[in-house]
Amino acid sequence: MRIGVLTGGGDCPGLNAAIRGLVRRGAKEYGAEFTGFRDGWRGPLERDAVPLGVADVRDILPLGGTILGSSRTNPLKEEDGIGRIARNLAELGLDALVAIGGEDTLGVAHALHEAGVPVVGVPKTIDNDLSGTDQTFGFDTAVAIATEAADRLRTTAESHHRALVCEVMGRHAGWIALHTGLAAGAEVVLVPERPFDMAQVTAHVEARFGAARAAVLVVSEGARPLEGSLELQTGELDAFGHVRLGGVGERIAGELERRTGREARSVVLGHLQRGGTPTAFDRVLATRFGLHAADAVHAGAFGAMVALRGTEIVRVPLAEAVGTLKTVPLERYAEAEVFFG
Amino acid sequence: MRIGVLTGGGDCPGLNAAIRGLVRRGAKEYGAEFTGFRDGWRGPLERDAVPLGVADVRDILPLGGTILGSSRTNPLKEEDGIGRIARNLAELGLDALVAIGGEDTLGVAHALHEAGVPVVGVPKTIDNDLSGTDQTFGFDTAVAIATEAADRLRTTAESHHRALVCEVMGRHAGWIALHTGLAAGAEVVLVPERPFDMAQVTAHVEARFGAARAAVLVVSEGARPLEGSLELQTGELDAFGHVRLGGVGERIAGELERRTGREARSVVLGHLQRGGTPTAFDRVLATRFGLHAADAVHAGAFGAMVALRGTEIVRVPLAEAVGTLKTVPLERYAEAEVFFG
Amino acid sequence: MRIGVLTGGGDCPGLNAAIRGLVRRGAKEYGAEFTGFRDGWRGPLERDAVPLGVADVRDILPLGGTILGSSRTNPLKEEDGIGRIARNLAELGLDALVAIGGEDTLGVAHALHEAGVPVVGVPKTIDNDLSGTDQTFGFDTAVAIATEAADRLRTTAESHHRALVCEVMGRHAGWIALHTGLAAGAEVVLVPERPFDMAQVTAHVEARFGAARAAVLVVSEGARPLEGSLELQTGELDAFGHVRLGGVGERIAGELERRTGREARSVVLGHLQRGGTPTAFDRVLATRFGLHAADAVHAGAFGAMVALRGTEIVRVPLAEAVGTLKTVPLERYAEAEVFFG
Amino acid sequence: MRIGVLTGGGDCPGLNAAIRGLVRRGAKEYGAEFTGFRDGWRGPLERDAVPLGVADVRDILPLGGTILGSSRTNPLKEEDGIGRIARNLAELGLDALVAIGGEDTLGVAHALHEAGVPVVGVPKTIDNDLSGTDQTFGFDTAVAIATEAADRLRTTAESHHRALVCEVMGRHAGWIALHTGLAAGAEVVLVPERPFDMAQVTAHVEARFGAARAAVLVVSEGARPLEGSLELQTGELDAFGHVRLGGVGERIAGELERRTGREARSVVLGHLQRGGTPTAFDRVLATRFGLHAADAVHAGAFGAMVALRGTEIVRVPLAEAVGTLKTVPLERYAEAEVFFG
Repeated sequence: MRIGVLTGGGDCPGLNAAIRGLVRRGAKEYGAEFTGFRDGWRGPLERDAVPLGVADVRDILPLGGTILGSSRTNPLKEEDGIGRIARNLAELGLDALVAIGGEDTLGVAHALHEAGVPVVGVPKTIDNDLSGTDQTFGFDTAVAIATEAADRLRTTAESHHRALVCEVMGRHAGWIALHTGLAAGAEVVLVPERPFDMAQVTAHVEARFGAARAAVLVVSEGARPLEGSLELQTGELDAFGHVRLGGVGERIAGELERRTGREARSVVLGHLQRGGTPTAFDRVLATRFGLHAADAVHAGAFGAMVALRGTEIVRVPLAEAVGTLKTVPLERYAEAEVFFG
Repeated sequence: MRIGVLTGGGDCPGLNAAIRGLVRRGAKEYGAEFTGFRDGWRGPLERDAVPLGVADVRDILPLGGTILGSSRTNPLKEEDGIGRIARNLAELGLDALVAIGGEDTLGVAHALHEAGVPVVGVPKTIDNDLSGTDQTFGFDTAVAIATEAADRLRTTAESHHRALVCEVMGRHAGWIALHTGLAAGAEVVLVPERPFDMAQVTAHVEARFGAARAAVLVVSEGARPLEGSLELQTGELDAFGHVRLGGVGERIAGELERRTGREARSVVLGHLQRGGTPTAFDRVLATRFGLHAADAVHAGAFGAMVALRGTEIVRVPLAEAVGTLKTVPLERYAEAEVFFG
Repeated sequence: MRIGVLTGGGDCPGLNAAIRGLVRRGAKEYGAEFTGFRDGWRGPLERDAVPLGVADVRDILPLGGTILGSSRTNPLKEEDGIGRIARNLAELGLDALVAIGGEDTLGVAHALHEAGVPVVGVPKTIDNDLSGTDQTFGFDTAVAIATEAADRLRTTAESHHRALVCEVMGRHAGWIALHTGLAAGAEVVLVPERPFDMAQVTAHVEARFGAARAAVLVVSEGARPLEGSLELQTGELDAFGHVRLGGVGERIAGELERRTGREARSVVLGHLQRGGTPTAFDRVLATRFGLHAADAVHAGAFGAMVALRGTEIVRVPLAEAVGTLKTVPLERYAEAEVFFG
Repeated sequence: MRIGVLTGGGDCPGLNAAIRGLVRRGAKEYGAEFTGFRDGWRGPLERDAVPLGVADVRDILPLGGTILGSSRTNPLKEEDGIGRIARNLAELGLDALVAIGGEDTLGVAHALHEAGVPVVGVPKTIDNDLSGTDQTFGFDTAVAIATEAADRLRTTAESHHRALVCEVMGRHAGWIALHTGLAAGAEVVLVPERPFDMAQVTAHVEARFGAARAAVLVVSEGARPLEGSLELQTGELDAFGHVRLGGVGERIAGELERRTGREARSVVLGHLQRGGTPTAFDRVLATRFGLHAADAVHAGAFGAMVALRGTEIVRVPLAEAVGTLKTVPLERYAEAEVFFG
């Protein structure tokens, strides 16, 4: 049995753990041989592949990023991309392909499956916005990093009697902001799913200053103002209603200074959230995903994605994962609101 | 509405987050007043109580341990313990009691419930061996600490071509060892649920030395040898079949040196696993448990324990939690075995 | 003996450890009583003071920030600021003042000393640019945080074959960039003391891409281009020669993309570098500074600042500390250059 | 120019950073070629050597341990060990040897130097007890790990109203205990240099319980009781006056329970202190030592060891380093005593 594997989309802590789990299980249990494609879908498109044995995956478990490289190359946007990949896989003599990635990568996997290519998907995204699985690996690490950052910002906020705004990733879903806000005890949490009222944000900060002379706000990069809530100049919002220029965190800090007369500062975590060694949680989840992906290939469960349900790893149709984004439900957001102000 | 709260059993990262979540939600949403009992069940037994307001729980979220103190006092072993508690709660004018703890603490809560006292339970234990909930808070932090320790031991193992044995908590259930072993890429993981064969352990270590000249073993304190697997002196095992004297980790290291002729060392993590600031995961879980415990009290759902099911917080009968220990199933242990040797 | 104490300037990990060391030593050894001024020089200017006893400093050692609050209020810019402070200290019956701060704060302390007020200085700044002492507390923590960040960025750089630019603090001195760059193995380090040639930076990155397909650059916020090295628009540099608009890190990333055709990204660490619990190194240094400041007051060594020389804490004249900034010497920068490209 | 390099003695965070610094500088600046000996002095004794180029040291900076392996093999205890090494180096055509290690390793280096072999030493030891240098790399990391452990133990101590004893490394010098105790705010610190009086230790713990109901003690493994301070059985102390059987930490915890009637627990950090990624401080120090060792070889400064003096790297005679152990002076211990009880 010969199996190809690739990692696509933004890098994410846990990718190497998943690769290692897949290869160990496949080689040891099923005698499979593995081929690693380089840089996401670029690999099978251009037939850029390397053999991947048990020795190659030794000691990679704790490493961030991906030894295979990644890219945002999308075969659906390439001339006959799906066809070229199918032919390359066949010519390389591969019996199956395991695609590890987020919505875009798994969307391609789904298209390949519909074109008759034997594919199994493994979900990853630090944003945790993939449907069909309770959680994706990478998310726990991103939240851990952002929580440590917010903890640090609190001491500065308290020493200088300031508001500190911590902008985290999440263009369309607010999971990182929600969990970071809960974990760091943020006085305000803003997510894309619920447009914010700047007057209310200001009121929360003022209330908190009465009790503690400091406030920490955790804000998704995709948080959007309610219409009319900010006096915006033409062109200051992009097509999604996102704040351009410096980002929403900086804009909110500026508004808070103007409206409250107190100091406010902002930090954008950006790429800090996606690198480095994975948390123990993500190492376990990614390893288990890798193990179960090998089982799924062996079972011929093509078109499936491995997924977490409670404490079990199950298989769900790829179609389920790529249909709609998993966003923060209002009752979950309400849990964070208990601590506002 | 007046609500008492206590934390019982071994301390555990996340207890303060749970207390804070309970008090914030109860006070803000339901206008409840809270009374904190000191040092677990000793508090209500001796009526040692303090008022607990929103200001008292400010900033406690990231702190390890419990501001209420804890103890292993067990009213079931005291003369009329349950009766005395019931009378004290009534005399203090409390409408309900929230008990945060592990199996022993929740066992008392269950007995109180059966005696007609309005009780809600919140599960915690770093051992993760409570039935009825996917996970307890404290566990993720314990695994994170143990994984970091095992990572450190690996560099020493590799530099000196040694076997390093890391003994972790888990007297009757091997969850910490299992997850730490998966997260740290251990070459051997031993748990109480599956008695070990010393000859096989030795074989795994020898195999690993062939490939990498080093091995890391993660071992539950409650790991037990298969009968006949170790030449034991009379009295070397206790009533549970556990290794006395220096612990099982040290004993295994000694055996490995004797059998392989290579150096082996052991470390016992002990109390390092239960203190310090909780991981972001545990902060979120504990906070949510606290919030939902307030809701359960308000709903009059007495005799229930809040629990994690997938991503939801639900209520389960206390009886379900305290009946049987949740141990590691063999198919989960098999996941770790993929990486042995 | 009655002693006032204040913390001025930007917050810094270790301030609380210094306060605790001072109060413990003064109270225990010399029977001194302490008064804490709030928010830097605002405290003595406005006579905003609180008693500060041994119980008040219990458990503050590991906390980031300062329990006394801080501000950038500068008495030298206030009408008769020095006179007002002198009179307030006298009216409060204080025998001495301990000022913990950076160049600005110690400059005021020096002016007070020249006006006859009994003052002792304690140096702090995350920038490490104070003369007269081998190191200031706060710096080690800032470098530790920045190094962890740079380590994380490297995994993303390698997975995506990118250049990642990490912008750290240091407007006029490059110590944080120098040490972070050495600690994180940066391929390029840019400091204010040595204007950079964009063509050479680009060449280093290209060279590194040949060997490893990734590069990490650590850049002081105050790094400046050599004249003519960047094609600048009018107004793009400020009076200090610093890059406006998004900062020098973002500008360099943009140039690298344009000149190499490869992806480049940047992150600004900003306030993340100054908050949170101090490293063990900074806790020890700050505690020792506090202890020795109490000794200096008791010895009547006014006008002095405590300082680190090798492993000893010594006293140096305040004048020595505030005269000139301690910048990175070229031979130290040359140590980092060994690893360029 | 051909240079051999080895790492000897216990592994230590920073060894790889030193190797990398040495090789980069030597290769880039002086065109030197490097040979790495495996497993300490075993390498040159048995002529077990590998070429070590710039590519081999890429990315090893953050790794704990040593890529060259280490051992406690001591040529001074081997038949004609020094002679064999001298001949092997000559036959391999090496112009110099760089020995990275602690007292034992540098003692051999000194003997080789006296036998006419061109040697340069680089000091390392987590114990910080080498004379001739302000600090050795490895020490800062050990203290950081022990401080984090002591912080964790404090929360358990406070939740359960216990004394917690943290036993750290240091058989003959108490540097790790001293710095960890200062950094973690320990109520008692015990070091080998100052035999302890159990009655006084008990009094400090009792005093602390009055104020805070908890105590943390940091104890060197080599801490020794004053004669008569503990009722000892025959054979309970070894030749150095050290407590056998379970260690001094466990013995002190037992005594505290017996004498105070309160709970006490102990933890032995052991090998946890020497593994894992180095702190930023140790990465910088080790890298600089490596760079300057290359310069020393190029300058023909044989018989010298690189050393830290203040912020400078200097050269000192190897004889200075290996003559006497650097122990904790009483005035440094007195700094920790300020916080006792």
